[in-house]
Amino acid sequence: MRVAVAGASGYAGGEVLRLLLAHPEYRSGRLEIGALTAGSNAGTALGALQPHLLPLADRVLQETTPEVLAGHDIVFLGLPHGQSGAIAQALPESTVVIDCGADFRLTDPAAWEKYYGSAHAGSWPYGLPELPGGRAALTGARRIAVPGCYPTVSSVALAPAVAAGIIEPTVNVVAVSGTSGAGRKLDVGLLGSEVMGSVRAYSIAGAHRHTPEIAQNLKAVGGVDVAVSFTPVLAPMPRGILATCTAPVKVDAAEARAVYEKAYGDEPFIHLLPEGVLPQTGSVLGSNAITLQVAVDSDAGLLVVIGAIDNLTKGTAGAAVQSMNLAVGFDETAGLSTVGVAP
Amino acid sequence: MRVAVAGASGYAGGEVLRLLLAHPEYRSGRLEIGALTAGSNAGTALGALQPHLLPLADRVLQETTPEVLAGHDIVFLGLPHGQSGAIAQALPESTVVIDCGADFRLTDPAAWEKYYGSAHAGSWPYGLPELPGGRAALTGARRIAVPGCYPTVSSVALAPAVAAGIIEPTVNVVAVSGTSGAGRKLDVGLLGSEVMGSVRAYSIAGAHRHTPEIAQNLKAVGGVDVAVSFTPVLAPMPRGILATCTAPVKVDAAEARAVYEKAYGDEPFIHLLPEGVLPQTGSVLGSNAITLQVAVDSDAGLLVVIGAIDNLTKGTAGAAVQSMNLAVGFDETAGLSTVGVAP
Amino acid sequence: MRVAVAGASGYAGGEVLRLLLAHPEYRSGRLEIGALTAGSNAGTALGALQPHLLPLADRVLQETTPEVLAGHDIVFLGLPHGQSGAIAQALPESTVVIDCGADFRLTDPAAWEKYYGSAHAGSWPYGLPELPGGRAALTGARRIAVPGCYPTVSSVALAPAVAAGIIEPTVNVVAVSGTSGAGRKLDVGLLGSEVMGSVRAYSIAGAHRHTPEIAQNLKAVGGVDVAVSFTPVLAPMPRGILATCTAPVKVDAAEARAVYEKAYGDEPFIHLLPEGVLPQTGSVLGSNAITLQVAVDSDAGLLVVIGAIDNLTKGTAGAAVQSMNLAVGFDETAGLSTVGVAP
Amino acid sequence: MRVAVAGASGYAGGEVLRLLLAHPEYRSGRLEIGALTAGSNAGTALGALQPHLLPLADRVLQETTPEVLAGHDIVFLGLPHGQSGAIAQALPESTVVIDCGADFRLTDPAAWEKYYGSAHAGSWPYGLPELPGGRAALTGARRIAVPGCYPTVSSVALAPAVAAGIIEPTVNVVAVSGTSGAGRKLDVGLLGSEVMGSVRAYSIAGAHRHTPEIAQNLKAVGGVDVAVSFTPVLAPMPRGILATCTAPVKVDAAEARAVYEKAYGDEPFIHLLPEGVLPQTGSVLGSNAITLQVAVDSDAGLLVVIGAIDNLTKGTAGAAVQSMNLAVGFDETAGLSTVGVAP
Repeated sequence: MRVAVAGASGYAGGEVLRLLLAHPEYRSGRLEIGALTAGSNAGTALGALQPHLLPLADRVLQETTPEVLAGHDIVFLGLPHGQSGAIAQALPESTVVIDCGADFRLTDPAAWEKYYGSAHAGSWPYGLPELPGGRAALTGARRIAVPGCYPTVSSVALAPAVAAGIIEPTVNVVAVSGTSGAGRKLDVGLLGSEVMGSVRAYSIAGAHRHTPEIAQNLKAVGGVDVAVSFTPVLAPMPRGILATCTAPVKVDAAEARAVYEKAYGDEPFIHLLPEGVLPQTGSVLGSNAITLQVAVDSDAGLLVVIGAIDNLTKGTAGAAVQSMNLAVGFDETAGLSTVGVAP
Repeated sequence: MRVAVAGASGYAGGEVLRLLLAHPEYRSGRLEIGALTAGSNAGTALGALQPHLLPLADRVLQETTPEVLAGHDIVFLGLPHGQSGAIAQALPESTVVIDCGADFRLTDPAAWEKYYGSAHAGSWPYGLPELPGGRAALTGARRIAVPGCYPTVSSVALAPAVAAGIIEPTVNVVAVSGTSGAGRKLDVGLLGSEVMGSVRAYSIAGAHRHTPEIAQNLKAVGGVDVAVSFTPVLAPMPRGILATCTAPVKVDAAEARAVYEKAYGDEPFIHLLPEGVLPQTGSVLGSNAITLQVAVDSDAGLLVVIGAIDNLTKGTAGAAVQSMNLAVGFDETAGLSTVGVAP
Repeated sequence: MRVAVAGASGYAGGEVLRLLLAHPEYRSGRLEIGALTAGSNAGTALGALQPHLLPLADRVLQETTPEVLAGHDIVFLGLPHGQSGAIAQALPESTVVIDCGADFRLTDPAAWEKYYGSAHAGSWPYGLPELPGGRAALTGARRIAVPGCYPTVSSVALAPAVAAGIIEPTVNVVAVSGTSGAGRKLDVGLLGSEVMGSVRAYSIAGAHRHTPEIAQNLKAVGGVDVAVSFTPVLAPMPRGILATCTAPVKVDAAEARAVYEKAYGDEPFIHLLPEGVLPQTGSVLGSNAITLQVAVDSDAGLLVVIGAIDNLTKGTAGAAVQSMNLAVGFDETAGLSTVGVAP
Repeated sequence: MRVAVAGASGYAGGEVLRLLLAHPEYRSGRLEIGALTAGSNAGTALGALQPHLLPLADRVLQETTPEVLAGHDIVFLGLPHGQSGAIAQALPESTVVIDCGADFRLTDPAAWEKYYGSAHAGSWPYGLPELPGGRAALTGARRIAVPGCYPTVSSVALAPAVAAGIIEPTVNVVAVSGTSGAGRKLDVGLLGSEVMGSVRAYSIAGAHRHTPEIAQNLKAVGGVDVAVSFTPVLAPMPRGILATCTAPVKVDAAEARAVYEKAYGDEPFIHLLPEGVLPQTGSVLGSNAITLQVAVDSDAGLLVVIGAIDNLTKGTAGAAVQSMNLAVGFDETAGLSTVGVAP
């Protein structure tokens, strides 16, 4: 099977390639890395842009066109918003197209238009197997929308509580992210001199585009509308998201913990930590794991769920590879690790 | 006037000295830096422990005893919890004693005992002039309890809303802090290798000792009990706190903003940023400023207030110096800046 | 006296303003901050670009033209290479023009042309008072070239040894710098995601433009050509340079130390640390100090001098203000501190 | 084959385990992870100390004794200096003992005693296969001394030049390291608050214990004594070493490059980057690669070699696993990657 990666000079594309190079089906020769494409970086050797991918250093990036991407069995897209639809339409229906961008995540056209300001392109199976029904929807899928990084950890952190009805449908998420979540974008606010030694919030009070995606996931789980307050915070580190999720709670700590143990006991990538141990992003660096802790603040009457992921791995490229595994019939966990690189 | 600093080898004591060295009354000779004391570091030259304080590098640290601290007009205490009371009692009532620790912050003995597990030592005037009545209580005071770093920014961020009754008394604070807030403590979890590249929550679900202090401040402002959910998060930077504070809101964004403009329009250290501009901790590094932004999330029905401070300056030593200024009749802003060191 | 800052949206211009706001002559009203100018950022409020300069937040940036800069007694230039000459020529000879850029640093036209690839604009008095003759050249000067950041610390670290003839004229400098030295430049390699957690060398083997400037300074000091090997290294921090300077040595450690004690014993900003204590950039953050340590590696036969500065303060804007003080007759140390912001 | 790791709560031991968990012989079941031991942490679950090693989270650490380590085919030692000899002596000669510590690195008793101040324990085959003769010495070895992190990159960077005689035997190494090189040690100078935002040199002028190890390697390669000046510098990042190595050169850049191409053209883990591309530590994070660049500074008459490694992987645990592979007959590269985790 031949795999292409469009947007191979970006952070999402680079992380897909990092994971593919370690994938057992690549090592066995069954998966082959074909075309690597880019926008303005086309014509450049990958080694100049992704120097950590030494085995592919000599590969020259091609233009991102349907012609270049044709002839591959699997195509990963790491493109700016709005470009995935045309590419996907030009590829055969049998091609597995896995979009790391937002274009096909939202099912509600009104939510899409409100947050993205353009026409809704549609929706594809959602690459979060750990949500109820998620795994089935991905098995054999030929078009897959990889979830946003914040929605991944927030939805996994809150879904069991919503599904079990142990919280009121009013959730508050404050999520601290590393800078790679913003992509490899030339922006003064993302310069090292500006981000090191500083923390800042952005897109507050419902302005962030991941807000409706979290709400969509929780509604799908619980069957009722869930009000979502979402505050993203930028921290001085390249990778990682730590989400603090709270909601008015109806049960005590033991019951809450039992709900999560039951929900995720068999999930290979979701780890409810022992009582009192708190997630940290450094422990999941480069891994596909989500670590969780669940507590009840009885004075404030709130469920408190803390979740940690690597935004580029489980939050993007790991979810993409996990979805690919399900789509083409590989072992779901192939090429994905729960071992982080620390310290 | 002679000033002593007990705990001069710690981060709080070091920051007090940094500010005193730049104080106009020190430069004019009216303030004199007398005894510098420490615990296990007594006998060492300050330059070996606080190499950034070059003008005091040759000063040798003395033992922290009442005898050493006697004969000073102003004594700053940066000591472990539980040690300030005995020291203060041994000093004349006329001495201005400014405690950077927690011992005299809480007025409610029950809250103290629940959170600190020891007998309540009492309470002193609270070093946050910007709260209603705060300035008056500090003018001419001889014993002052410097607020905790998290309560400083959280209380300032929420007090106007509580006072004006524009929110329900149920607040949620998620505050991201640099590592110096934990003090100069030998703890594996505070090693550079562990904190760099990683974010983690700690003392969640009401476990952090600053929770009752925030509640106390807000109750004093609003006259009713306020339920406080508080989640502290550790980020990879030495200094700074960014607090995301939310509460169910009864007014729209314009009204909320007007409340804050009125409350803080004349405050020298509190800056409500222009609409849409968000606080960042890097901008207040080393400064005594608190920057705020206020928004309303109308979908979630929440007031969202973001506040940034330097935990060691306005969050500790700056508040201590500001309180000293009020206590002894200097200009309140003397020696304190609203200019941060950036980038 | 009215002061203008051209390039006020950059890091050098921002740091000049930070220092001016704390300058006693500004506080006394004798210095007034006049026009603030920028290139593409003209028309924007300073608060949107330099949010740490709260007292100037509402100032709107003007275009950088001679007309706007006219009518000021002192003009600081923080402009891209090649723009200072025309501006300076259009200003009266009596105006104190202090250029933070490179245009007037090199005296040798051939060196300029080799390293900058353009016609040599000339040379101005060099803003490093601590070099032999440096102070005299700056007293009353009306045109001043502020040294480069690397040459500042390297020259100060090596000048006494060169002057005393205790080393062979073959020096090796490896200097590790924070990212602000590269300016506020949109460059993928300067993004936070790229620089955090990584160290890299650049412009090695004599390619860096500061190489001839170091050589020029050392030749001026010693009277003979000095071969300079210079390797700059980028580290994940916003500010600071740590230079490791080595050269074949002719004396023992005690003699070497004596040379440095004699050279810098009276300098207000240069601190030879006690034996065995090593400089660290964190201790001089925001300060105008240079900390030094001197050792002899007797096995390798080398003098080893380690020096630390803040590249934006003593390495740029602090030197500019120190030079201004000398040029206009203020106290040389006015507005400049040897106290760093740490931790 | 059963593997034990002594010192599993430290950084070296943790990294050995991270690599073993990804090793194909572990995945195939041929390698089994047996006893994990510690000193003061014995009795604790590994998950509390190495939370990134999720698959081993429930393993309880045992005491580090010969009895516990007996019955394993391979024993990795990550112990404080001076403890490896007694352990190794108590294990059968047929056990493969791989010491990540310093005890058996130096062949010269005098050098050992000078730098470590204790009796010389002897020397074992040196775990750097890329040095001349290195691979042969490790094939089938039963006792292996893993090189120090600084000597690994420095020796690889300089060995070809020494072997080919293209430099004078006088080398200068300035190497910038992340903090994990100091181990998981409670030391105020290693606290996050102290290291973030700061760079400092330490153990300068020949004082660092890795100095004689570099000299030993280069002498072994070239047959003559090589004078080594070594300056280690601590940078604010958890992992990585960037070494700047210089020496008087006798050839031009093309000849120098040819020497390195020939030396390392077939090495799986050593990558001479394309001309003009410079190594960065971030690109080798978690990988076993060494990236090199070679240049000649013709003005200064120096060879300049820059090398980057991950100090915990190729600099410690990767070398240990690579050596294990050679010792027991696995593929030398098994379980080791040249793909870094970036950004």
